[in-house]
Amino acid sequence: MTKIKLGMVGGGSGAFIGAIHRVAARLDDQFELVAGALSADPNKAKQSAAELGIEPTRCYLDYRDMAEAEAARSDGITAVSIVTPNHLHFPIAEAFLQAGIHVICDKPMTCSLQEALSLQTLATRSGKLFVLTHNYSAYPMIRQARQMVSEGILGRLRLVQVEYAQDWLTTATENSGNKQAAWRTDPRRSGPAGCLGDIGTHAFNLATFVSGLQVEQVSAELTSFVENRILDDNVHAMLRFEQGVRGMLWSSQVAPGNENGLRIRVYGSDGGLEWAQEQPNQLIYSPFAQPSRILSRAGYGYQSGSPHLVRTPAGHPEGYLEGFANLYQETAQAIRLCAAGKSPTEIFANSLLPGVKQGVEGLQFINAMLFSSQNNGQWTALENGHEAS
Amino acid sequence: MTKIKLGMVGGGSGAFIGAIHRVAARLDDQFELVAGALSADPNKAKQSAAELGIEPTRCYLDYRDMAEAEAARSDGITAVSIVTPNHLHFPIAEAFLQAGIHVICDKPMTCSLQEALSLQTLATRSGKLFVLTHNYSAYPMIRQARQMVSEGILGRLRLVQVEYAQDWLTTATENSGNKQAAWRTDPRRSGPAGCLGDIGTHAFNLATFVSGLQVEQVSAELTSFVENRILDDNVHAMLRFEQGVRGMLWSSQVAPGNENGLRIRVYGSDGGLEWAQEQPNQLIYSPFAQPSRILSRAGYGYQSGSPHLVRTPAGHPEGYLEGFANLYQETAQAIRLCAAGKSPTEIFANSLLPGVKQGVEGLQFINAMLFSSQNNGQWTALENGHEAS
Amino acid sequence: MTKIKLGMVGGGSGAFIGAIHRVAARLDDQFELVAGALSADPNKAKQSAAELGIEPTRCYLDYRDMAEAEAARSDGITAVSIVTPNHLHFPIAEAFLQAGIHVICDKPMTCSLQEALSLQTLATRSGKLFVLTHNYSAYPMIRQARQMVSEGILGRLRLVQVEYAQDWLTTATENSGNKQAAWRTDPRRSGPAGCLGDIGTHAFNLATFVSGLQVEQVSAELTSFVENRILDDNVHAMLRFEQGVRGMLWSSQVAPGNENGLRIRVYGSDGGLEWAQEQPNQLIYSPFAQPSRILSRAGYGYQSGSPHLVRTPAGHPEGYLEGFANLYQETAQAIRLCAAGKSPTEIFANSLLPGVKQGVEGLQFINAMLFSSQNNGQWTALENGHEAS
Amino acid sequence: MTKIKLGMVGGGSGAFIGAIHRVAARLDDQFELVAGALSADPNKAKQSAAELGIEPTRCYLDYRDMAEAEAARSDGITAVSIVTPNHLHFPIAEAFLQAGIHVICDKPMTCSLQEALSLQTLATRSGKLFVLTHNYSAYPMIRQARQMVSEGILGRLRLVQVEYAQDWLTTATENSGNKQAAWRTDPRRSGPAGCLGDIGTHAFNLATFVSGLQVEQVSAELTSFVENRILDDNVHAMLRFEQGVRGMLWSSQVAPGNENGLRIRVYGSDGGLEWAQEQPNQLIYSPFAQPSRILSRAGYGYQSGSPHLVRTPAGHPEGYLEGFANLYQETAQAIRLCAAGKSPTEIFANSLLPGVKQGVEGLQFINAMLFSSQNNGQWTALENGHEAS
Repeated sequence: MTKIKLGMVGGGSGAFIGAIHRVAARLDDQFELVAGALSADPNKAKQSAAELGIEPTRCYLDYRDMAEAEAARSDGITAVSIVTPNHLHFPIAEAFLQAGIHVICDKPMTCSLQEALSLQTLATRSGKLFVLTHNYSAYPMIRQARQMVSEGILGRLRLVQVEYAQDWLTTATENSGNKQAAWRTDPRRSGPAGCLGDIGTHAFNLATFVSGLQVEQVSAELTSFVENRILDDNVHAMLRFEQGVRGMLWSSQVAPGNENGLRIRVYGSDGGLEWAQEQPNQLIYSPFAQPSRILSRAGYGYQSGSPHLVRTPAGHPEGYLEGFANLYQETAQAIRLCAAGKSPTEIFANSLLPGVKQGVEGLQFINAMLFSSQNNGQWTALENGHEAS
Repeated sequence: MTKIKLGMVGGGSGAFIGAIHRVAARLDDQFELVAGALSADPNKAKQSAAELGIEPTRCYLDYRDMAEAEAARSDGITAVSIVTPNHLHFPIAEAFLQAGIHVICDKPMTCSLQEALSLQTLATRSGKLFVLTHNYSAYPMIRQARQMVSEGILGRLRLVQVEYAQDWLTTATENSGNKQAAWRTDPRRSGPAGCLGDIGTHAFNLATFVSGLQVEQVSAELTSFVENRILDDNVHAMLRFEQGVRGMLWSSQVAPGNENGLRIRVYGSDGGLEWAQEQPNQLIYSPFAQPSRILSRAGYGYQSGSPHLVRTPAGHPEGYLEGFANLYQETAQAIRLCAAGKSPTEIFANSLLPGVKQGVEGLQFINAMLFSSQNNGQWTALENGHEAS
Repeated sequence: MTKIKLGMVGGGSGAFIGAIHRVAARLDDQFELVAGALSADPNKAKQSAAELGIEPTRCYLDYRDMAEAEAARSDGITAVSIVTPNHLHFPIAEAFLQAGIHVICDKPMTCSLQEALSLQTLATRSGKLFVLTHNYSAYPMIRQARQMVSEGILGRLRLVQVEYAQDWLTTATENSGNKQAAWRTDPRRSGPAGCLGDIGTHAFNLATFVSGLQVEQVSAELTSFVENRILDDNVHAMLRFEQGVRGMLWSSQVAPGNENGLRIRVYGSDGGLEWAQEQPNQLIYSPFAQPSRILSRAGYGYQSGSPHLVRTPAGHPEGYLEGFANLYQETAQAIRLCAAGKSPTEIFANSLLPGVKQGVEGLQFINAMLFSSQNNGQWTALENGHEAS
Repeated sequence: MTKIKLGMVGGGSGAFIGAIHRVAARLDDQFELVAGALSADPNKAKQSAAELGIEPTRCYLDYRDMAEAEAARSDGITAVSIVTPNHLHFPIAEAFLQAGIHVICDKPMTCSLQEALSLQTLATRSGKLFVLTHNYSAYPMIRQARQMVSEGILGRLRLVQVEYAQDWLTTATENSGNKQAAWRTDPRRSGPAGCLGDIGTHAFNLATFVSGLQVEQVSAELTSFVENRILDDNVHAMLRFEQGVRGMLWSSQVAPGNENGLRIRVYGSDGGLEWAQEQPNQLIYSPFAQPSRILSRAGYGYQSGSPHLVRTPAGHPEGYLEGFANLYQETAQAIRLCAAGKSPTEIFANSLLPGVKQGVEGLQFINAMLFSSQNNGQWTALENGHEAS
């Protein structure tokens, strides 16, 4: 099977998430990285391209040039991965979609709801795929959880408790030369949401993915605990889902002892499920009035409809990179279907890939949370009327 | 050392919490059960007394008679344990305090804030001890946690996440002959709070005990998920503590897979702590930027100021009954101090025993939660102005 | 129900195991401590008796006097608990059995197999009960495990992996004033087995209790890791059970990080079980080719034939003291049956109480282990021919 | 950096371990698969090559042709991965080493000690690298463990407890069409060791890797529990390491509930370590007389000398594939050093890569275990005198 030609914008040497995307793209051997605008710094861009085996002629200094040039080549890239800081996602995605190139974009999709809605229109019109890398939704046991919920194994859903706790911003590390911390706590580069935008959106996405339900309203309290920090570093919220389901969301970057503590629990009239990202290969299933069961990835009792995601047998742990690679694998499949004539709309309707829809929802969530918190926790609908301030 | 003569109201044969109190009283050999009004049913009262080795003459059919008669005896009881349904706590406590007998009372203290305030006045005037059995605050590792917080080991406190999840009311078991379920879901016998009063108050008490802080305001959403159930079976709340500390509280009786899932996590500028009631002998301590440590009851690194609570060496698990017995042990000590001339006020000020203060706070919490939930989550102060409806 | 009158030999103030026995006897309110020879030191004996509410006239300085005097009283003790150092178990048990008093004895039963066999004869002839407190066999989930094995739920048994690891003898603490360490590492007071006798016998007993099988042969390697320590502080063994079942046993007192790490795993053709003493309220059951299940004490799926051992609901942890109390509770029942005319033989045959049989087996095990280790791991039968040297 | 040209023998479509090797080789982008003799079945070989993007001219039907042809090409492969059944490892390795091509070989190295010794000689003479994929030794926390031991953080080492338990051979699945089971239980294809060779050798390798010590003697008991199975499916052994260190090894494929339960615990005079493969990102470190600490991959307190193995931050789990890829990454580095003139001897001396030395030790271990088991557990030295029968 021919590999899909991939480009990348951002992700020069030393970048964290760019390297993750490259491993994810490589893992299942479906993509080949052939072009890049890897850094705003020309020297770094060239050096990074050389390290990655990208030919000098396909090492670009500007993403607009790249979109244009690659679209013009007969062997040009079919898809591009966008791994820049958030505020550049929109213009870059726009450039490539307009050039007829599929886009794989890191989250959050954009810095404002308005941009998100524009991108939604743009993507729809383009006939190209826009994939948003909400990677946690692609862990095998999360897929298993979603499937169990959708099959009604938990009965009528009632509760969704989700949390995402980290500790790396416990102190004002943004003032000590930590670049990741610096831009994530800076409203000019991150927009109005701090912890909320960085990891709160992952928790939100996971809650809707597993439950299969929309969040209708939120009541939120955002806090900045570290002195002089402008953006929130802790997020508390109560959630009202459709169908009367209720939930809570906690995300924090000031909770010592939590490395990457994403965790979800869902409960229905007939049972409960519990999953934690740091032990992703197991899912605790508690049928009501029976002993709890430990379901394991690829193990006995694993019934996932995603057999293509099983690379290793039960007991051979897969982790973060494999979860991320699952999105790339499914993107490859989507690109091939698109090439075979299916429309993106059709493809997304029949897949679990996150796309612009999830991106728009993420921004609606951010805005509603900010509005609620600024209004003393007022219950706030997730709609387009609230633009963050 | 002479054993303290103890009476009991409620707790006839078959009762759950009465038996727990008796084991707790017996465990450390400080009390001797010599009198009781164990049941409203005369036959059951007599049979229960006989089984417990209480002399027939000290088996009472009415708690008022018991208070009077025991107060009149030279060898009368020094203290009484009240283990009846909630709505009787107040009149019984009143009767015994007025008779000059110390009271040990199961929680919640009363069914209304008004009664709680009356009881507070009454207890203060009586010169007798009123102990409220918030047993979870007497687990050794909870004592250790409180001590670490109070010594500033976590730095400046920021977050308190507390939860108490059970699953036994997942279905309408109150309609199937389960008596515990029947009275707990019946507003006439339980008052206006269901899950909130039954276990939410434990979670609240634990949060304030460990943090050493008052909750100033709550924003709540109470839900009844089971059809035709009147009282709440799920509680969601955001908490505002004094000193800018923030928190969340979740309590539920409809979360399948949770037996008695009381759990607390607290985070400060210098570290975090995590404890779960179902594994009560360990406390996870995460000093910021260092590996997490597993502190164990009576083990290395255990520095608790409560050495009197250590009955077995590290690795020999103590549990629920031992935790409950800790309250009785400290009550015995308090009674002896009282007999030696210390005032209850002085005694409570120098002990960790829960009393009327915690009882009043519990009712304030219940009322504020009900008010907030009835007012769409409005942030509501814990004060005496909100009487539940 | 009248309480059983109990005496105690050993267990003066400050002693560890004596206090444990007293709590265990008290917990379920079946015993009343009325007599004692609590210490070889007369002053300590008197003071201890006073603290425990034992009348001065029933505070003895010599166990022989006590046996005689109590046997002569119309209100004399029915049973005695022996909690002295090991080498005194035999003569004390002999004195009380001959006086017609039931004996509850801490383990190991005696210091030599010869004494054990004598005691077996003596006990059988006496018509009285001899109960050996192998307390770990009375944990509810261990009872559940034994029952599941005996009902064939695991299919044909194949493997028993048992271990008991501690760390308190990692250094030469016996030279630093630790009295517990001093006598346990001294062959004159402990006999020829160190860690083997102290905790290895518990592991051995648990393995035979859960499996319901005899160990036929052992191949052992005993080691003393701490310089100048004479007795073993680490025990490695392979086990051959009857019916072709195989196993391993590890016990150690020099394994840092292990507080009281008794753990057993058994596997058969149809499933496996796993239990750890430090989390005694759960038992992992893995039916072959199905997800593992978490069985909990008193929880869903708990089918134990020992409902009398359930004091608290699921999720309310019971621990070491409750497990120990289970033996006392069952002993009380046995004593009542004996009083009602059943023979000890009959009673033991219909109960799970450990007695002289388990005591003799324990000594056979110790001797075979010592012999094997002294003979370079030679497979050695558990029979009466090997007396330890 | 130019990618290293890699060939593969074995690993046609549907094969498990071949696919693992390919992902591992790809993960860090150091290798490029350009040639293969992927199957003995010509059609399958061609189809597999096509699927993997190998040019038809470099798809070979015989490994000897491949070795010859690739050696002759100016762009021929630099290294080959051998992922065939065990009995073919030797002749294939021989062919490629003689052709001057580096060899990466799955374990066990050969089926007999004699072959292993021949291969050792051969490899030494060839001047080429022979890497044996004992992948578990390349998990980051295992590297951390080894480093801590070697730095003396545990003090003087005393104990090594290692186990590797699975359950997939609990029933006679070899008779039901499971091909993996069929050849692994067939002495003609697997040699004389069943579970011992398949996973016991991994446990043995891990024990020596972490401790840094040689096993001098073993006392073993091998068992076949499943009816009519010829090879062992359960392995029990006691181990004598150099320097007086003692240990136990259990490996089993008939232990229901164990998916891939490789676990190691090591204890010294100053502390202990505990690691389990199914949660590979954490290592429990217990300094004596202090609380246990949870060390995490890339987290606080992680001091590993292998920073090149950190692909994701703490809390973002890496697993089996990443561990395997670590070996490929280090092999790539070794190949580049070799190209730069370093000798294999020098390279292995300064790396943690497993090679022929570990292969020979593995066969010595297997033979000594078989001899001991056949001689009633006789302590048996790991030397070249015991050839398995």
